[in-house]
Amino acid sequence: MNRQGILIVVSGFSGAGKGTIMKALTERYEGYALSVSATTRSPRPGEEDGKSYFFKSVEEFEQMIADGALIEYARYVSNYYGTPRSYVEEQLAAGHDVILEIEIQGARKIKEQYPDAVLLFVTTNDAQTLKDRLTGRGTESEEVIRNRLLRAAQEAEGIEEYDYLVVNDDLDTCVNEVHGIITSEHLKMRRRLEFVTNIREDLQGLMKGE
Amino acid sequence: MNRQGILIVVSGFSGAGKGTIMKALTERYEGYALSVSATTRSPRPGEEDGKSYFFKSVEEFEQMIADGALIEYARYVSNYYGTPRSYVEEQLAAGHDVILEIEIQGARKIKEQYPDAVLLFVTTNDAQTLKDRLTGRGTESEEVIRNRLLRAAQEAEGIEEYDYLVVNDDLDTCVNEVHGIITSEHLKMRRRLEFVTNIREDLQGLMKGE
Repeated sequence: MNRQGILIVVSGFSGAGKGTIMKALTERYEGYALSVSATTRSPRPGEEDGKSYFFKSVEEFEQMIADGALIEYARYVSNYYGTPRSYVEEQLAAGHDVILEIEIQGARKIKEQYPDAVLLFVTTNDAQTLKDRLTGRGTESEEVIRNRLLRAAQEAEGIEEYDYLVVNDDLDTCVNEVHGIITSEHLKMRRRLEFVTNIREDLQGLMKGE
Repeated sequence: MNRQGILIVVSGFSGAGKGTIMKALTERYEGYALSVSATTRSPRPGEEDGKSYFFKSVEEFEQMIADGALIEYARYVSNYYGTPRSYVEEQLAAGHDVILEIEIQGARKIKEQYPDAVLLFVTTNDAQTLKDRLTGRGTESEEVIRNRLLRAAQEAEGIEEYDYLVVNDDLDTCVNEVHGIITSEHLKMRRRLEFVTNIREDLQGLMKGE
């Protein structure tokens, strides 16, 4: 049967390992595409246009906003970041499951426009583990750690709006769980209505024809 | 974290292999319990009370109905069949995922009473395969096959009310898919709200305490 790709939004606590999970997922399994963001910030050494980011001028970016060519965007410090609609939709149409790493405000915008998107929140096993990871090698000041915890507490506000909660305790387990979630989402009845229509018609045909 | 069991309803076309899938599932994976039905029909040789069925007299069965001790029941020919509530709820409370094989009318009653139940519909890959299985060894009359197809067409009416559609083409794949669905259902946010509350409180505690 024809398989339409699923749009997957991954959010989670800073330090919970979103990036590592997504990298492992795309390396281990076929059929995933990581969404490539557009940004107005300058490329860093080694970053490739269209791979790391789509690098845009401020004028180009603002034109994309005006054209509705971005599913969502945000401004951090003095740079724009956003998700180009065309790349996402091409990948979905090709049957790829597109993964987007994004924060809660962006996740909400995605869900509004793509109600079938699947929203995952990644967490550590407990708050202490999160604090340990945020503390890092112990070189950070109290102030920095406090700010990171404050940010985590803010990130925790919207958790209930996500569809699934994934605990990144063991990376292998976690990657398998994420892959299992997407696999199961493909089996959801609402994604297979065409199959149902076909088998129903064929049953009618078999009864009439024979 | 404490894990509450999930109630899983399995329906599907006669001939799609529901029984085989459920048997393989419980043999291959831990944590599943097959629901045991109550019935007023007589035990057949080798059937054990409390294992194959809970065997009841008509009076006992009707008392169970009156007491609300059955989640659902139906009458086929002159016998009652039903699902005892106590067995299901004990298993769920013990953290087991309880599997119920039942038809659409029963599935609807389950979903009304247990909105968190997961409803699976099992189908063959296409209508012709279903017909071939129903035709069996070619010893059945046209009439019998036609009646089975008619029944399949009726069973197909309620498919959209199910949460997932599973194709039993290859048994191994199918069993893995069903297990993957249940595993992923445990990761659904609405089943993990206690975890979210805990980590949120712990984060607050870490920020205040240190």
